[in-house]
Amino acid sequence: MKCLVSLLWFAAALAAQPTPASSPAAAPSVISPEVHPDRTVTFRFYSPGAKEVLLTREWGPPVPMQRDGQNIWSLTTEPLEPDYYGYSFVADGVGLADPKNLETKTELLRLYSMVHVPGPASLPWESGSRPHGAVHHHFYSSPAVGDNRDYFVYTPPGYETLTGQRYPVLYLFHGAGEIAPAWTTQGRANFILDNLIAQGKAKPMIVVMPLGYGAPELAASGGATRDPAVRDRGRKGFREALFNEIIPQVEQNYRVLTDRRSRAIAGLSMGGTQSLYTGLNALDRFAWIGAFSAGLGTQDYAADFPKLDQSANRQIDLLWVACGTEDTLIAGNRQLREWLKSRGVRVTEIETPGIHSWMVFRRSLAAFAPLLFR
Amino acid sequence: MKCLVSLLWFAAALAAQPTPASSPAAAPSVISPEVHPDRTVTFRFYSPGAKEVLLTREWGPPVPMQRDGQNIWSLTTEPLEPDYYGYSFVADGVGLADPKNLETKTELLRLYSMVHVPGPASLPWESGSRPHGAVHHHFYSSPAVGDNRDYFVYTPPGYETLTGQRYPVLYLFHGAGEIAPAWTTQGRANFILDNLIAQGKAKPMIVVMPLGYGAPELAASGGATRDPAVRDRGRKGFREALFNEIIPQVEQNYRVLTDRRSRAIAGLSMGGTQSLYTGLNALDRFAWIGAFSAGLGTQDYAADFPKLDQSANRQIDLLWVACGTEDTLIAGNRQLREWLKSRGVRVTEIETPGIHSWMVFRRSLAAFAPLLFR
Repeated sequence: MKCLVSLLWFAAALAAQPTPASSPAAAPSVISPEVHPDRTVTFRFYSPGAKEVLLTREWGPPVPMQRDGQNIWSLTTEPLEPDYYGYSFVADGVGLADPKNLETKTELLRLYSMVHVPGPASLPWESGSRPHGAVHHHFYSSPAVGDNRDYFVYTPPGYETLTGQRYPVLYLFHGAGEIAPAWTTQGRANFILDNLIAQGKAKPMIVVMPLGYGAPELAASGGATRDPAVRDRGRKGFREALFNEIIPQVEQNYRVLTDRRSRAIAGLSMGGTQSLYTGLNALDRFAWIGAFSAGLGTQDYAADFPKLDQSANRQIDLLWVACGTEDTLIAGNRQLREWLKSRGVRVTEIETPGIHSWMVFRRSLAAFAPLLFR
Repeated sequence: MKCLVSLLWFAAALAAQPTPASSPAAAPSVISPEVHPDRTVTFRFYSPGAKEVLLTREWGPPVPMQRDGQNIWSLTTEPLEPDYYGYSFVADGVGLADPKNLETKTELLRLYSMVHVPGPASLPWESGSRPHGAVHHHFYSSPAVGDNRDYFVYTPPGYETLTGQRYPVLYLFHGAGEIAPAWTTQGRANFILDNLIAQGKAKPMIVVMPLGYGAPELAASGGATRDPAVRDRGRKGFREALFNEIIPQVEQNYRVLTDRRSRAIAGLSMGGTQSLYTGLNALDRFAWIGAFSAGLGTQDYAADFPKLDQSANRQIDLLWVACGTEDTLIAGNRQLREWLKSRGVRVTEIETPGIHSWMVFRRSLAAFAPLLFR
């Protein structure tokens, strides 16, 4: 007896794919990335024509890959700590996602692949089998910015059934060159919150992750501009979209607490700068502020935070400024912290090993979220 | 006066990216894809070493690209109808996503890029500025299949505020080689429903899009197997996960109507086969059944649908079987329809121009959804 589904899944699998070319240069079968039991990782890329192939790694500078007799370029790493790592190949100057790896980061400017070195279920970013919250994707037209944009909302496990409960909210921003899904793809924010909540380490909360650009030109360039007018419009548009569009929509459509002590604001890199600028200038709205590896350099903090002095300590439950010690932004972060202290503002100073990377950003969220709403 | 955010977005944008290699082979700046005003599209790919680069197109067989003096391989198409088109480059036998295009399809077996040839806002897949529904991503551990899996739920505009209203539900399945987000990325199902609802063409409805594999091995292979035991386990697992896990979760967590006349089931390719097999064998649960370019060949329909005869017409509000006339699966679809008619079962027979592609699948959804729940 032949069965319809049995027979035809395979036929459909073939039919659904574009026909492979009958290329004269048939490519050998390649596995990449291959994570070995000792946590070393082998990357492989077949390219008969390339003169040079580099591995661009989120965990260090680019390194050359070696070609074998079959024109397979490869590189095996040292043992890596369990984590998710971004990477790409650069073949004769062209950055390429690993064609054998379907896990990509969601970025705006270039395709990156991502490899998972698995670790114990206790690691906050592992997905595991514990109860999971949900991630909700919203789309709307923004008068503040003048474009169509989106944001993501994490609701914790049990949100659907505990209909009498209201939750505090963390507003969480991505970095330059990224887009709204960054925190739930490479950031794994939903799994991090699932795990912290399951372990009793963090209070159940809602996390809102908007697109981080306040002007259409910045959304196209990944945040980069040399035009001061665009910069100023972007800063204003970001704050207006947050205050007049996203927060009202969230507070209308989700069961959230709306007092300032139930609102936190944080972000990474560009998003950390935004959370500081937005949060410290709106203490009537936010009591918990986090900056993860914020994009800070040499600037006139007195101009950016004109009203900030020690009286803010009465309103701030937590001002948490974290940066990796190998991050080129560490100097700017230290400078901000010194300025805050010189103004009498209490700041939690966090320095951890690491560069400007998601390995640091994810750990920042995992360390920051448990402190909130206490 | 220097401003913190103004100055540092650009620095953060640079810092967030891995350092580009100081490669001896500096790649020229390339724009790809470039959609021209006459709706032709130019694809470009820089590769000094490749001996052959092909463009693999969702809208036809692979075609060779031409190299210029700068080692930029390019191809300009004929004018294309407004739509979204999948494509990739094949350089010396290696399939590659377009490194200059961040729009990718979500697939399981290979990276594909996607290019949008924009059309009038009246086209169902254009996103536009009309009210948008939301897309909800759920994660859970499945006893039926024995893995951790996910599904997506579309809620129509107004769902959050019209709290007294309950909605009918369409269960919608992806094809082989795809994953749960396929219908909301390349499928644009949420925008198609937004548009049909805004134009008064479709009833407001909820759409549930689960992962389509009923066994972990099939989830890893994209549905392909030659092991009959895996096939049977997959078929059983898919149905059990749908009936015992996904439908109960949806009916618990969303405001949905739960009678059979408020439940539709449809899918594309492998998913079309699943919707026929699952739906026609469970008319106590579903009154509306759609198969879009279903994976049908030569099989023993009497064995697959042992109880199906003309008495089913009393229960079936719509049995809609559509396929592209240039699809290699058209013969199997015609054969099924003839068999259904020979059994006295009423079937709506749809043949439209096109191959086995998302250009056809999206139009199938746009034609099917307006017929539901009438």
